[in-house]
Amino acid sequence: MSGFVAVDWGTSSFRLWVMAADGAVLGESRGPEGMAHCVTAGFAPVLAAHLAAASAPSDWPVLICGMAGARRAWAEAPYADLPAPVSVLAAQALRLPPEQAGMRDIRILPGLAARDPARPDVMRGEETQLLGLALMGHQGLVCMPGTHCKWARLEAGAVTDFRSFLTGELYELLSKHSILRLGLPESGNPSPDDPAFVQAVDQALADPGLLTEALFPVRASGLLGYATPEAARARLSGLVIGTEIGRMAPQVGADGMTLLGQQGLGALYLAALQQAGLTPRLADAETATRAGLLAAAQAIWSLS
Amino acid sequence: MSGFVAVDWGTSSFRLWVMAADGAVLGESRGPEGMAHCVTAGFAPVLAAHLAAASAPSDWPVLICGMAGARRAWAEAPYADLPAPVSVLAAQALRLPPEQAGMRDIRILPGLAARDPARPDVMRGEETQLLGLALMGHQGLVCMPGTHCKWARLEAGAVTDFRSFLTGELYELLSKHSILRLGLPESGNPSPDDPAFVQAVDQALADPGLLTEALFPVRASGLLGYATPEAARARLSGLVIGTEIGRMAPQVGADGMTLLGQQGLGALYLAALQQAGLTPRLADAETATRAGLLAAAQAIWSLS
Repeated sequence: MSGFVAVDWGTSSFRLWVMAADGAVLGESRGPEGMAHCVTAGFAPVLAAHLAAASAPSDWPVLICGMAGARRAWAEAPYADLPAPVSVLAAQALRLPPEQAGMRDIRILPGLAARDPARPDVMRGEETQLLGLALMGHQGLVCMPGTHCKWARLEAGAVTDFRSFLTGELYELLSKHSILRLGLPESGNPSPDDPAFVQAVDQALADPGLLTEALFPVRASGLLGYATPEAARARLSGLVIGTEIGRMAPQVGADGMTLLGQQGLGALYLAALQQAGLTPRLADAETATRAGLLAAAQAIWSLS
Repeated sequence: MSGFVAVDWGTSSFRLWVMAADGAVLGESRGPEGMAHCVTAGFAPVLAAHLAAASAPSDWPVLICGMAGARRAWAEAPYADLPAPVSVLAAQALRLPPEQAGMRDIRILPGLAARDPARPDVMRGEETQLLGLALMGHQGLVCMPGTHCKWARLEAGAVTDFRSFLTGELYELLSKHSILRLGLPESGNPSPDDPAFVQAVDQALADPGLLTEALFPVRASGLLGYATPEAARARLSGLVIGTEIGRMAPQVGADGMTLLGQQGLGALYLAALQQAGLTPRLADAETATRAGLLAAAQAIWSLS
């Protein structure tokens, strides 16, 4: 086989690349048909449409990472355990039966589970990015901003530990659905340069338990005329991100850390990490995803 | 005047008592027509209906506390400042003009504002309960569980400081609208006896910054088979309540503390306060509300 089709199937997005054995991207297609869409609309038609759009050769296999392998998604690819090198992910990839896959060889990579009853955790999709990062030379802690931000440890080419923070979802819930929404702008995102963001990050870094008592005052500051809606939003963002980073900064060892993604939410994390005295190595999320999928595909199919 | 009508007008509830000058309750009426209902349906008709239902004498005045005095509610009763004794609340009560009140003397008590730019805060309704508690002999810290739990300090018959926690709303948002909802029971409430509640409170008390990293594992514990939906719900409740109490417990001084309300949410707070080594004095919320309204009414109208 001289190539394969790489797919990153998230909760709310779909991305497909037609890739040569050397990693060159020969074609691509993307859309909004994430798992949330496909659980009702079906997975096979979405994949078929994107394969056609990207002119994927009909005999090339498909390797998928992400939420398509979740329980109640296309087909459950049970979580792999820690520590997880590429070889484990490749070996545990779930091959779809012909009635789901048709003539193609279609496989879904497993997610990872941290089976510690005191601190259980799971991921789907990020494990592939992490193994891509390992191949790109990264090690130590990796911070992966998102709805459920993951912090993972890479050692000797394997994911050895990770934990997830609800920070992104918490910000969304508080800014869109809590009483705080009444004092925030209706749309838009905070800027890492906003003094209210900077101050909130500093305060959260200095006081690990601040968050719980600092939330209601975000609303009161508007009612009493101490903050504009934009400043209140920046403060809320700084409080939740600063609290998370304050929790993890002490875990960064001599091998340093990597930040995956520096746009949007990633820019806020970068600023806050720097405020915490960290100097993260920077990496691109899509590049890492493709590198991880390519490595797993080479382990499965001996591409050449 | 030998009596008055006391009204507690909350966000989602309405309570009215016809009260003699000595505090005896001569009649009452309650309903679900809180501020949220009345901002569209109107305030005056709701009050008139409950006055009639409780057979309130037509010449007795009405004293209202709570959200009816909020901005964009019936008529804004601007916040009073700290420290706030009963005399300040009574003096700053807003009298409705005849076009809103008709022939009756209807007044709305102000809320309180903590005008500290570093930690601004507001309350509406609780100030009346607090002044009632002061008259009932309570002093020191008072914990008032609710959607936005208030902790206030009573000194020499006045509210001298307070802060609000978003704990109740956070629990609602997380259990009903976040990814955690997928692993929780569809209805019902946690029990303070649930071992998962007790353990979560202990852990949150011991680790002030635990909350932010403990939320996502509430979901993972279900996915990996470590916790039942009921245990996951109890853990979530214990985490948010324990974090709040861990924050405030060091503030309890030699004069001790009071817990207002011991049913439902109050029972969870009582258990968690006791786990934190506190022995709260107990007080009934409605009794405190009526005592505060009576004291303010006596200051305004010289009831006898």
